[in-house]
Amino acid sequence: MNQIKIFAPATVANVSCGFDVLGFALDTIGDEMCIRKSDKKGITITKIEGCNLPLEAKKNVVGAAGYALLDALDSDAGFEIEICKNIKPGSGIGSSAASAAGSVFAINKLLGAPFNKTELVRFAMEGERLACGAAIADNVSAALFGGFTLVRSYNPLDIVSLPTPSELYATVIHPQIEVKTAASRKLLKATVPLKDAIKQWGNVGGLISGLYTEDYDLISRSLHDYIAEPVRAVLIPGFDKVKRESLSAGALGCGISGSGPSIFALSKGLERAQNVANAIQKVYQNIGIDFYVYVSKINTQGVKIIS
Amino acid sequence: MNQIKIFAPATVANVSCGFDVLGFALDTIGDEMCIRKSDKKGITITKIEGCNLPLEAKKNVVGAAGYALLDALDSDAGFEIEICKNIKPGSGIGSSAASAAGSVFAINKLLGAPFNKTELVRFAMEGERLACGAAIADNVSAALFGGFTLVRSYNPLDIVSLPTPSELYATVIHPQIEVKTAASRKLLKATVPLKDAIKQWGNVGGLISGLYTEDYDLISRSLHDYIAEPVRAVLIPGFDKVKRESLSAGALGCGISGSGPSIFALSKGLERAQNVANAIQKVYQNIGIDFYVYVSKINTQGVKIIS
Repeated sequence: MNQIKIFAPATVANVSCGFDVLGFALDTIGDEMCIRKSDKKGITITKIEGCNLPLEAKKNVVGAAGYALLDALDSDAGFEIEICKNIKPGSGIGSSAASAAGSVFAINKLLGAPFNKTELVRFAMEGERLACGAAIADNVSAALFGGFTLVRSYNPLDIVSLPTPSELYATVIHPQIEVKTAASRKLLKATVPLKDAIKQWGNVGGLISGLYTEDYDLISRSLHDYIAEPVRAVLIPGFDKVKRESLSAGALGCGISGSGPSIFALSKGLERAQNVANAIQKVYQNIGIDFYVYVSKINTQGVKIIS
Repeated sequence: MNQIKIFAPATVANVSCGFDVLGFALDTIGDEMCIRKSDKKGITITKIEGCNLPLEAKKNVVGAAGYALLDALDSDAGFEIEICKNIKPGSGIGSSAASAAGSVFAINKLLGAPFNKTELVRFAMEGERLACGAAIADNVSAALFGGFTLVRSYNPLDIVSLPTPSELYATVIHPQIEVKTAASRKLLKATVPLKDAIKQWGNVGGLISGLYTEDYDLISRSLHDYIAEPVRAVLIPGFDKVKRESLSAGALGCGISGSGPSIFALSKGLERAQNVANAIQKVYQNIGIDFYVYVSKINTQGVKIIS
């Protein structure tokens, strides 16, 4: 095998109660990348479609993640990479994570799969370090493992792959505004009230239990965020109304995707997820902010080989 | 049915990462109670063995919990209750919870089971309110449901019954010292570092995932407490050594049971749980503090009818 084409999914991190630990992958939104072996040592990005991102490999997350893998092997291998970016950077649905996860997945495959998925997460995190200054794992874990993933611990890195209820669908709306991750992180306080923290881990427990038992009501009751959403929602115009409308339209829950500006909702069944999409897009039509809206099954596979 | 005899299990609350939300029930330690219908309206405690506790029903958790149930039904029914207390008050393994859970379970049964288990938890919480000033739910939930239970939320009350891996055994050591719950609670700060809270809910997620998948390694990796144990352990002489010895003897994890002074460890298999018991009792033998030590399967049934 000298060349593969892959799909690297968009991902939702945080997932309400799961601030900094939970993520899930989307099935119909993602980047495509074509990776082929090359005689030239190292990573060469030959083309980027859909976004204005650096072609210089070491300045692009694709390269940062890929080189982390190659350096671990002390490898002389060379790869040419073409990227078709469908996930806009700054969307809050894991644009950099998709690039980083896609890169390490494909390179690993072409090298005969020397690394397992958790090891790939570690390399992909180097892409995140370049993109946002912190080697976060929640988006890249979801992109590589698929389904719902839990980052139980960073040190040592411990990723737990969680089950995905079969009728669970995501609706994501991406208002065309910019929310800087740094600004969003700055709003968080260094300490939180113990009583809120207890509610949060009660809900993490409830959500994970609901995923195992396909208990959609329990999932719904658990999708609350007492930590990040209360302080971050102000950065996203219309957030409260989008949340209200999504719940009225039957969503199980609704929250900020990553650090925004995208907003996600989870629903039982495709029809309801589409109703939620219809309801929430009206909010931004009325406000007069452009948006993209997506409805997607949960991707249970992670990065996939297309050809 | 005019009379039943029940076994009400001792319980471990908090369970390391699950501060204030998780609990589990023990199988071989618990109180026995005999409850019979009586012509005299209300609750009459006729006998208490094993402890010096008030016979006056309204001053005893058995009565406080039982009356909460009877009041909800506006019932004229009467019950005589004999209590054989094997769980010493102040032990940290749910002495008051066993009394409260046993009382409402038995009365409900003799009345034809008008209430479900979650409703019974609510009544039993009134016993906890009398015993410790706060209507806490973690011990009574574990005592009534059995197995591992999650108090996802207090308002509304939402109890999630979790699965119990078949080879999981508990070792509990109860040093004969007094730790006041109030003193123990006072050590907790009203706010906690966000970074610690995130580790805590990552571990709650890992522990619950491990219970569903019977992944003992994941259970072990998740049994850490960044919130209560670091500040409360000082109240229990020998805690650090007990923890170290239990882990050396092969325990999956070890922590404070409730607010102490009992210490619990979880192990895979009876033999290892017994090895842990042997190792940790030496600690208190050396310090010269009297103790009880128990090894028990996890009780998966909750309060049980004996006859």
